Amino acid sequence: LKEGKQDTFHDIIKDLQPFDVAVQFKELPVKHRPLFLEFLTIKELTELLRHLNQDEQLHVLRVIGPERSTAILGMMKNNDLAFLLTGLPKAQVDELIAEMKQEEMDNIVSIMNYPPKTAGRAMTKRYIWIHSSYTVDRAVSKLKHFANLATYLNYLYVIDDEKKLIGVVSYRDLLLAEPHALIVDIMSCNLITADVLMKQEQVAKLIAHYDYVSIPVVDETTILVGIITVDNVLDIVVREANEDIEMLLASGKAIDFKTKPLVAAKKRLPWLILLLFIGLISGSIISRFEATLEQVVALAFFMPMIAGMTGNTGTQSLAVVVRGLVTEDLSFKKSLKLLVRELIVGILIGVTCAILIAVIAYVWQGSFVLGIVVGSSLLATLIIGTIAGTIIPLVLHKFNVDPAVASGPLITTINDILSLLIYFEIATMFISKLM
Amino acid sequence: LKEGKQDTFHDIIKDLQPFDVAVQFKELPVKHRPLFLEFLTIKELTELLRHLNQDEQLHVLRVIGPERSTAILGMMKNNDLAFLLTGLPKAQVDELIAEMKQEEMDNIVSIMNYPPKTAGRAMTKRYIWIHSSYTVDRAVSKLKHFANLATYLNYLYVIDDEKKLIGVVSYRDLLLAEPHALIVDIMSCNLITADVLMKQEQVAKLIAHYDYVSIPVVDETTILVGIITVDNVLDIVVREANEDIEMLLASGKAIDFKTKPLVAAKKRLPWLILLLFIGLISGSIISRFEATLEQVVALAFFMPMIAGMTGNTGTQSLAVVVRGLVTEDLSFKKSLKLLVRELIVGILIGVTCAILIAVIAYVWQGSFVLGIVVGSSLLATLIIGTIAGTIIPLVLHKFNVDPAVASGPLITTINDILSLLIYFEIATMFISKLM
Repeated sequence: LKEGKQDTFHDIIKDLQPFDVAVQFKELPVKHRPLFLEFLTIKELTELLRHLNQDEQLHVLRVIGPERSTAILGMMKNNDLAFLLTGLPKAQVDELIAEMKQEEMDNIVSIMNYPPKTAGRAMTKRYIWIHSSYTVDRAVSKLKHFANLATYLNYLYVIDDEKKLIGVVSYRDLLLAEPHALIVDIMSCNLITADVLMKQEQVAKLIAHYDYVSIPVVDETTILVGIITVDNVLDIVVREANEDIEMLLASGKAIDFKTKPLVAAKKRLPWLILLLFIGLISGSIISRFEATLEQVVALAFFMPMIAGMTGNTGTQSLAVVVRGLVTEDLSFKKSLKLLVRELIVGILIGVTCAILIAVIAYVWQGSFVLGIVVGSSLLATLIIGTIAGTIIPLVLHKFNVDPAVASGPLITTINDILSLLIYFEIATMFISKLM
Repeated sequence: LKEGKQDTFHDIIKDLQPFDVAVQFKELPVKHRPLFLEFLTIKELTELLRHLNQDEQLHVLRVIGPERSTAILGMMKNNDLAFLLTGLPKAQVDELIAEMKQEEMDNIVSIMNYPPKTAGRAMTKRYIWIHSSYTVDRAVSKLKHFANLATYLNYLYVIDDEKKLIGVVSYRDLLLAEPHALIVDIMSCNLITADVLMKQEQVAKLIAHYDYVSIPVVDETTILVGIITVDNVLDIVVREANEDIEMLLASGKAIDFKTKPLVAAKKRLPWLILLLFIGLISGSIISRFEATLEQVVALAFFMPMIAGMTGNTGTQSLAVVVRGLVTEDLSFKKSLKLLVRELIVGILIGVTCAILIAVIAYVWQGSFVLGIVVGSSLLATLIIGTIAGTIIPLVLHKFNVDPAVASGPLITTINDILSLLIYFEIATMFISKLM
C-alpha cells in the first residue's frame, strides 16, 4: 500500500477523518513515516498535528523541515499552537515563533501570557466578528471570505465601534433572515460571556449549564478577545476529572497507557514514600501504647478495621465535596448546611457500625468490655473522619486551593493517626477491666 | 418584586437564560412558586423543566395541572422526557403518556425501550432530515418551517429513498452554496455515525475524538433513528467521571450537596459494613499469628504501613487503568504491554521502598533481621498490589463489567488480606532470629 503512488494514497486519505489519519500514522512503522508525511498536504498535516501529543508533534515538525513547518504553524488554531509551545525550552519557542507572521505571533504570545487554566489559555482567536451595522448579506459575504477559518463555528460575533461585544448571530439566524435585514435587528443580545481570567472549570460549568457549543471570551471592558468551543470544554472536563481522581487516589499525575515504567514509578513514588512515613507515625503511636498492646494482644485484631473504616468515611465525604464542586458553587450558608448534613451522616453511620462491631467483638473475644472499647472508638473515629473529610476540602476551596490537591493524602494521614490515638487512649482507660 | 404584576415579571424573565430562571425558581420560597409558574408561558416552562431534577420536575407538573402539563410534555426534547419518565412507577408513566400525541408517544416509548446507557437512550428525535434530491432553497425552507425544533442543531441530515443516512449538510454549507445547487452535490458523505446500541461512553469518545457538536445515530441497516448532541455528551462525560470516582472510592452513588442525611448514610453504609467485615478478616489473620505477635510486639508497629502502602499501590494502578479506558480502547496486545509496564513499576517502587524501610526498621528497632523481614515483605506486597490493581480491572473490562464497579472495594480487600498474610508468614519464618 504505502510503497508507491501518491495518487492512490490520496484517494484513501481524503476519505478519512483527521483523527483516523492520525491513528494510521501512529500505527505506521517509524521508517515509513517520512514518506507518509511527504505525501500529505499542508492542510492535512495541520489536521494530523491536532491529534498527536506534544512529542509526536515536535517529531513531525522536525521531519518535514522548516519550510512546511512554518506553513503549518500559520494554519493551526492558536490555542492548539499555544498547547504545542507550552513547556518547550525558551530557545525552541523563539525559533518556532520567529518564522511566523507578525499577527499570528502576537496572538500566540498574548494567549501564552494568560495564567494557566484560565479561559485565556483555552480560547481561540479564529472567530469571525461582524459590526452591528452590517446587513445579513454583508455578514454572509464576510463568512464566505473567511470560510476556511470558521469550520467548527456556528456563530458570528457582533461588536460595536469600540470592539465591545454586543451580540451574537447564529448561522441559523442568517439563513432565516431576509438578505437586507440589519444585523442589529436579528442579533441576540442575551449574552453569556466568560471573563478572560475566569478559571477553565468555571467556563466548563457555564457551557454545560447553558448548553452552548461555544462561548465568547471578553476582557474587563467587555471587548471580545476570543472564543472557547465545546470541543475544548470536553477536553477540559475530562482532564479535570482525571486530575481529581489522580489527587483523590494519589495515583500520579498524567500517567497513561504509554507512560514509560521509569517515569510512572517516579511519579508515584513521592506519595508512596510519604505514605511510608505516615505509616511509621501510626507505628510509633502503636509503640507508645506497647504496654497496653502487650497486655491485650486482641486489641491488634481490630486495628486494621478501625483505621480502614475511618480512612474510608473520610474519603467518602471528600469525594462528595470535590465532585459536588464540579457542578455547583458553594456559598458559606450552603457549606454550613453541607457540614451539618455530613455530621448527621457521620453519627448515623457511626452508631450503626459501632453497635455491630461491639456485638461482634463480644461474641468473638468473649469480652464485654472489649466490645464497648472497640464500639465506642469506632463511633468517635467515624464521626471525626466524616467531619475531617468535609471541612478540609471546604477550607482548601475557600482559600482557592484545588480541594483535591492536598486532601486525599492529607485526610488519610489525619484519619489514620487520629483513629489509632483514639482507639488506644480508650483501650488504655479500660485496661484494668480488659485483662 | 414577585407580589404583583405579570408584565414587569415578564420583562425580567425574558432577559434571562432558562438556566438562570431555574436558579431563581429554586431559590424562591415554596409558597411563591405556584404564582411564579402561573406567570410563565408554556415555552418558558418547558425550558425551566430541563434544568430541574426529576423530583422538582414532577412537583412542577403537579402544580400547573394536567392541561398545561400535557402541552409541556409535547414540547420537551424526547430524551429529556425519557429521563423524566425513567424510574417513575408504571402507572404514573402511563398516565403522563396517555395525554400525549400518538407520534410523540411512539418516540418516547421507542427511546425508553433501548437498554440504559446506550446511544439510543441519549438521543433526540428532534433533528431535521432532508432528501438528497432537494435543492438548497428547498432545504432552507424546510429549515424555516421547523425552525423551532432545531434551535441547538447545526446540521441537516440527508437521507435516501430508504431513509438511510447518506450525508450531512451544515448550516454553513447552506449559507455558502448557491440557492439552486443540489443537496447531493454539497453534502459531506464522510460520516461518523453511532450505532443505536453503542455504549454512551463510546459515543462520547467519538464526539471528543472528532470534535463534533452532534453525531447521527443509526440502526443496523444505517437508517437514521436520532442524533446525539454535544451538550448531552458533556453530561454523560461528567456522569461517567463521577461514577468512576464513586466506585473507586466507594463513596456512595449520586450523593450531591442536597441529598438528605438519611439517604446519604444509607447509600454509604453497605460498603462500610463490607469494609468492617474485611477489617475483621484482616483481624482474624492477625489472631492466627497471635503467638508470633506476642513474641515480637514490634511487628505490630509496621502493620499499618504495610497494609496502607499495598492498598495504595493497588488503587494507583487501578486509577490508571480505569481512567485510561475513558479515552482509549485496549487490545489484548496493549493490555499485555500495560501489565508488563505495571510489573516493572511494581518492582521499581518495591525495591526503593523496601530498602528505605529496612534501613529505618533497623535503626529504629535495632534489629537487622526485623529490617530484612519488613523490607522483603514490603517488596513482595508492593509487587503483588500493583499487579492485582492492573489485572482485576482488565479482566472485568474483558468481560464487559465496568472495571470501576467491583474493583475499588475488591482490590482493597485482596491487598489488605494478602499483605498481612505475607508479612506474618515471613515474620514467623524468621521468628527464632527475631526474638
